[in-house]
Amino acid sequence: MNFNLNEAIEVLERTPTTLESLLVGLSDTWLQCNEGEGTWNALQVVDHLIECEKSNWIPRLKTILKDGNNKEFPPFDRDAHISNPSQTTVKQKMDEFKSLRTKNIGIVRKLLKDDAQFELTGEHPAFGNVKLRELLSTWVVHDFTHISQIVRVFAERYREDVGPWEAYLGVLKS
Amino acid sequence: MNFNLNEAIEVLERTPTTLESLLVGLSDTWLQCNEGEGTWNALQVVDHLIECEKSNWIPRLKTILKDGNNKEFPPFDRDAHISNPSQTTVKQKMDEFKSLRTKNIGIVRKLLKDDAQFELTGEHPAFGNVKLRELLSTWVVHDFTHISQIVRVFAERYREDVGPWEAYLGVLKS
Repeated sequence: MNFNLNEAIEVLERTPTTLESLLVGLSDTWLQCNEGEGTWNALQVVDHLIECEKSNWIPRLKTILKDGNNKEFPPFDRDAHISNPSQTTVKQKMDEFKSLRTKNIGIVRKLLKDDAQFELTGEHPAFGNVKLRELLSTWVVHDFTHISQIVRVFAERYREDVGPWEAYLGVLKS
Repeated sequence: MNFNLNEAIEVLERTPTTLESLLVGLSDTWLQCNEGEGTWNALQVVDHLIECEKSNWIPRLKTILKDGNNKEFPPFDRDAHISNPSQTTVKQKMDEFKSLRTKNIGIVRKLLKDDAQFELTGEHPAFGNVKLRELLSTWVVHDFTHISQIVRVFAERYREDVGPWEAYLGVLKS
């Protein structure tokens, strides 16, 4: 096990600026390409990250920390940004994501004061009991998953263009 | 085919700032973790990107564009940063990468003035004849490959920490 709150926060606080550097100012041909019908483009990935900041990580964290016995996580819809699409620009999305993330890291720092809290549990709809440290580790790896997804979607756009080099480029194999 | 020089340059000019946002200031536990013996950590990936700026993309581009019949690419050692490791900090590496990339994009803009140049070829040691537009597309997807590699290496560090969520996190499956 490698989880450490300060190291986790180092990653969480970098993701918005990493995605801002990667995405803001890119042509729509990049921002709107996807991997085929039913798959997400980069803007939809950012909408999903925003939705998670609003309705997933902190509500689940607070559920684990609250008094009482009912520790069921509140509902989360991973397709909320598809059924209710936002019309904001990439710059507006990045500003919103950055602002929510900064606020949420502040909440984490304020609420978590004692290592014993990391072992507290809540009830995940599919997995049953999960620990607070697993939720926080997942938040970090969820960021990595979606950075990875965005560059994979972009790379796919050039699959034919690279010619024989396709054989050497790892991102085209994942 | 989707290759377009301006759109390719949009990506190439963003990679150094994307990696700077992701890496500078991170703890060594992140920067020095890898996927096991013989695999690269994030700092070694950046060293490799620097080596490519010096000895791969531009020398190959110039080989394709030069007069004469010998269009064999000059040798490139993808493990140069392993046999001859650099002792620079992550900040120094990022500054060097950014400076080389800016200079190289300037060379590309200066040398490429005519779409017909994209169809010119050089001789790759393994693939034989490759086109200039394939080389430029590969430069872009090579950036994506190594951004993807770095976040995959980081995610691996938390594989056990995420507990049952491992099943939901795409980056842990690639």
